[in-house]
Amino acid sequence: MPDKSPKRLPGRPKQADTQISVQQTIILTASKLFKEYGYETVTLQQIGKRCNVSKPTIYYHFASKPELFKVAMITMFQNVRRVTSDFLDHAEHLEDGLIRLAEARLANPHAEVETMIREAEPFLEKNQIQEIREAEARIHEVLATHFQLAMDQQTLREDDPMFLAETFSTLMLMGNRENTTQKYESNLALGQRLVGIFLRGAKST
Amino acid sequence: MPDKSPKRLPGRPKQADTQISVQQTIILTASKLFKEYGYETVTLQQIGKRCNVSKPTIYYHFASKPELFKVAMITMFQNVRRVTSDFLDHAEHLEDGLIRLAEARLANPHAEVETMIREAEPFLEKNQIQEIREAEARIHEVLATHFQLAMDQQTLREDDPMFLAETFSTLMLMGNRENTTQKYESNLALGQRLVGIFLRGAKST
Repeated sequence: MPDKSPKRLPGRPKQADTQISVQQTIILTASKLFKEYGYETVTLQQIGKRCNVSKPTIYYHFASKPELFKVAMITMFQNVRRVTSDFLDHAEHLEDGLIRLAEARLANPHAEVETMIREAEPFLEKNQIQEIREAEARIHEVLATHFQLAMDQQTLREDDPMFLAETFSTLMLMGNRENTTQKYESNLALGQRLVGIFLRGAKST
Repeated sequence: MPDKSPKRLPGRPKQADTQISVQQTIILTASKLFKEYGYETVTLQQIGKRCNVSKPTIYYHFASKPELFKVAMITMFQNVRRVTSDFLDHAEHLEDGLIRLAEARLANPHAEVETMIREAEPFLEKNQIQEIREAEARIHEVLATHFQLAMDQQTLREDDPMFLAETFSTLMLMGNRENTTQKYESNLALGQRLVGIFLRGAKST
């Protein structure tokens, strides 16, 4: 296993800035390893080794591997939701907010997340799966709220705002393609083009 | 391993209709197993067992597992390209062709294909990877040709036709989401909505 340092999740403060608790360290490490190697391959021992924490310490914080996986996925989705809220709430226009959001999300493509969750599902309990799916849906609810607002202001045509939210999220999977940033200069440039086509398609005129 | 019968690839005739050669059977079975379990997990023995072919017979047709994987991926992409051509060449309007294409592709989402190819890459030679990527790019070339035609006729705004092709392909990953057909009635209905937003976004006015 190559020992790359874990990627910082969007919205998560730098390790240098804050004292991250043991529990958070375990969650971050688990997220990173599950994303890289899939659910089944990764053991609690590996997770512990990677973040210098003993297996009993992991069990002190998390009842089981499925439970740790659940918390790791929910934490990741909560971070994406927080970033989504931040960008859209503080943007001058919907377009600006979506472009900034696209830039961030294209840099962290989630295509493999769906594959990973599907792989893990046979090992999870029904309510664990449901909690993960709900955390994911809440990202789309934030987007949908902003799209609904734009529809109320008649800048977007009437449509199902959750459909628009899922369509926008799907477009962000462009970040998962081969050589995307080489082809499109930067995630910002690609984000601008994707948001352009998306908003023209969703506009009221 | 659950013994589900392999999904028919788009554009591929039913087994009942045609006598499929041993080589084609191996390719189809390999595609199915690699997609379901990933590159590393699947052995040539499993592939042989699933399609009642001995391991020496597989080696008679394919020099190695990486070679079989390469041919399986290229065959799959060639099928998608053929379907893409058929639908777009024979459609009355670009919109009709894209909707029919979307219906077919939403039913066979390729999100896991990218994950699988990435997983396999460390085991492949450079030229094997390149051949797979070229087969994939040829799908986008077919789409791009039709988009360029529409730009020449000024029904689409001037844009990079390969960007539009990749954007369209990315939108097809909506078929990979949880409960998509439940939420959107059918792949046809979802396809119509996605093509709608895509074409309005790409249109010249």
